[in-house]
Amino acid sequence: MNIIKVSANSRTAAVAGAIAGVMREHRFAEVQSIGAGAVNQAIKAVILAKGYLINDGIDIICVPQFVDVDIDGKVRTAIKLTVTPRGEDTAPTPEEKPEEEETLETTE
Amino acid sequence: MNIIKVSANSRTAAVAGAIAGVMREHRFAEVQSIGAGAVNQAIKAVILAKGYLINDGIDIICVPQFVDVDIDGKVRTAIKLTVTPRGEDTAPTPEEKPEEEETLETTE
Repeated sequence: MNIIKVSANSRTAAVAGAIAGVMREHRFAEVQSIGAGAVNQAIKAVILAKGYLINDGIDIICVPQFVDVDIDGKVRTAIKLTVTPRGEDTAPTPEEKPEEEETLETTE
Repeated sequence: MNIIKVSANSRTAAVAGAIAGVMREHRFAEVQSIGAGAVNQAIKAVILAKGYLINDGIDIICVPQFVDVDIDGKVRTAIKLTVTPRGEDTAPTPEEKPEEEETLETTE
């Protein structure tokens, strides 16, 4: 699973670049964030990525959902944004699903 | 324009109810928030609304964008989430566009 993890300190341009790269390759991306600051950065990154990708003819939409994640042995509720091209909004089949994981914890 | 305005203190269930109501009536909703706390409440409300609406056969997606808004004479950048049914993701024509405005500034 290729999950782009975003923190409150993630640079939006870096996250947007990651989303755009994953979308160009897989036409599907997952962006995960925990906490208001991280969710805000994630949404801003999706807006930037939308601008990058429109030039490639990919018009993205997103679907948010809650997911429980294990952080240092504690269960926390994260918000996952599933990003897909408009009108093609289905998850890839498991075989097509990317395997890498990217974490963007760089500071602004 | 029916814009659902969300603050950091908005109750997510109340906002979700508003989104669900507007979606049932117009199949189109706009949710506007300024600041990380408000954006976080808005996204959580969309997730809750998605749960409410799936029971009505409406599977929602959202598209975020930046919008400049005038707050007490100062221009601020808000995040607007355009909510539509999946696969029907186009804005209504101006005549179809709802006219009312709802503001949810209630505290948790």
